Amino acid sequence: MKIVVDGMGGDNAPVEIVKGSVMACNEYGVDIIITGDSTAINNELKKYKYDQSKISVVHTTEVIENDDKPVSAIRKKKDSSLVVALNMVKNKEADLIISAGNTGALLSGGVFILKRIQGIKRPCICATLPTINDKSVLLADTGANVDCDPENLLDFALMTDVYAKNVLGIKSPRISLANIGIEDTKGNDLSKKTYELLSKVDDINFTGNMETRDVLNGVCDIIICDGFTGNILLKTVEGTVLSLMSKIKQLLLSSFISKIGTLLIKGKLGELRSLLDYTEYGGAPFLGVEGGLIKAHGSSNAKAFKNAIHQGIKFHEGRVIEEIKKSIELKKTTTTD
Amino acid sequence: MKIVVDGMGGDNAPVEIVKGSVMACNEYGVDIIITGDSTAINNELKKYKYDQSKISVVHTTEVIENDDKPVSAIRKKKDSSLVVALNMVKNKEADLIISAGNTGALLSGGVFILKRIQGIKRPCICATLPTINDKSVLLADTGANVDCDPENLLDFALMTDVYAKNVLGIKSPRISLANIGIEDTKGNDLSKKTYELLSKVDDINFTGNMETRDVLNGVCDIIICDGFTGNILLKTVEGTVLSLMSKIKQLLLSSFISKIGTLLIKGKLGELRSLLDYTEYGGAPFLGVEGGLIKAHGSSNAKAFKNAIHQGIKFHEGRVIEEIKKSIELKKTTTTD
Repeated sequence: MKIVVDGMGGDNAPVEIVKGSVMACNEYGVDIIITGDSTAINNELKKYKYDQSKISVVHTTEVIENDDKPVSAIRKKKDSSLVVALNMVKNKEADLIISAGNTGALLSGGVFILKRIQGIKRPCICATLPTINDKSVLLADTGANVDCDPENLLDFALMTDVYAKNVLGIKSPRISLANIGIEDTKGNDLSKKTYELLSKVDDINFTGNMETRDVLNGVCDIIICDGFTGNILLKTVEGTVLSLMSKIKQLLLSSFISKIGTLLIKGKLGELRSLLDYTEYGGAPFLGVEGGLIKAHGSSNAKAFKNAIHQGIKFHEGRVIEEIKKSIELKKTTTTD
Repeated sequence: MKIVVDGMGGDNAPVEIVKGSVMACNEYGVDIIITGDSTAINNELKKYKYDQSKISVVHTTEVIENDDKPVSAIRKKKDSSLVVALNMVKNKEADLIISAGNTGALLSGGVFILKRIQGIKRPCICATLPTINDKSVLLADTGANVDCDPENLLDFALMTDVYAKNVLGIKSPRISLANIGIEDTKGNDLSKKTYELLSKVDDINFTGNMETRDVLNGVCDIIICDGFTGNILLKTVEGTVLSLMSKIKQLLLSSFISKIGTLLIKGKLGELRSLLDYTEYGGAPFLGVEGGLIKAHGSSNAKAFKNAIHQGIKFHEGRVIEEIKKSIELKKTTTTD
């Protein structure tokens, strides 16, 4: 398989992106194309040992910046590392794209260039959160679709179900709806109608509503919600963890005795940090377009980017897109019965 | 002033409710009426020293349980401690009600019995969250209104503005809209329209959108959102804090060395716990009805309940309802100009 990497996307591009790509190439033996400023990228590549037949560079002259407006950037910057990479997936020159760049541009490009899978009105972007039982939970949508209808959320459920089965290896993923109470009568108009719709689908393991109090407790494998709620949820978890950790650090360093104590628990704090470390969890898959697309974290270092590539490999090997198409086809048959 | 307390509401009623009421009476010299099973309440009262002229008991024969359906409970259980207490506020026999009972019933009762303030379509329930700069942030709505329009959110802003000024003593409360990005073009249909509406109001200090990543960072004094989003946000913060603290505890106790370290940081962990302790933050005011109404936490102990009563006193002294009426009147004048 062949992966195309947006060499100029992300806070640490191209340095960490190139390094992560080399690491992935050496570890997984995957073929990689890197798009971007060939001088800068080759300068980085020179630093490493790898099978030179497996990494190639495609020179591009433009970069989509983080503050560029997504849709117009995709339309205007035709020779950007991102647009060129997306076109390579479209033209089957690569199986999958990975980018740590402008999220909005990546998603818009996914829809405009790769196109939606037939039958999917709204592709969704997923996030992975660690849970306290040392597992993880998949959350969708986390911001691609801020206004949704129940049908969109059903599609998110069907697509993440395929992803969880084929990439995460979960046999019968427990899918819950993020809501303000577990009873079926709870929630806003959208969540009540979605509950009803999801309850009718036989092919997924819908376990009902979940309260976001339990988001890190491992009560389900997949959390479904509209993109506004998902984005609020995701950023609230991230922010709460960061704020709490910073407060703990401040408290621990505020007295001599507690500083000594902190030295003794240093190893455990390290374990906690690695549990919460986003670099361990790979990137965010964008599901519902005609091509594999993984969004790596904007501040990805080489290790995080390598993990995102690994995820891309599993995505491709798991035939996620083909399986999503089957699932959507089945939905159509079922709902027209 | 006179406060009526729902003596049977909450997980620890009547024991902790009565104890908290006595504590408040002794500390603040406030007159208190407790509704509920007079035998049980008097048995508790007997345990304490207080000015007997300041606490009276009104016997009621029914209790609204936590799993009762709010609207039908309010309609059917006419002699419940909650309905009787609400009627006392309605009939001006008390200035304000405090209950730790069934939230839905309390809010429904607030609307059906006390009635909405003229000009307010949707009253809102607020929560207070601690921030890492040792202050707090007010969040509204946290669940009374799951589907909202921008006009509702404007009302939440006007009402919480009054509350923050008159109860919390903040001169010019910074009001932000919970959103998925800080730019004015971000968000769903509701948040974009609300942003536009709030920007036009001169009398409040609207500071724009806030990302929920910053919820505990003290970037604003008031966060406004629809009740679905607010409830998700609130429970996500609570859940993340609980999950993280439980994981930290588990890690710290997992080795001999870290156990010793934990002993040395015990004091600091205590400080952290008290920072996060809901009992310090009083109850949740329900704004927009014709009467003061404070919802104490369902699992309130005596101290939490005493703090909720203290908050009620400040609510009354701050003339919150009268000031909300003025603010709504002003809005009408401004918007018809």
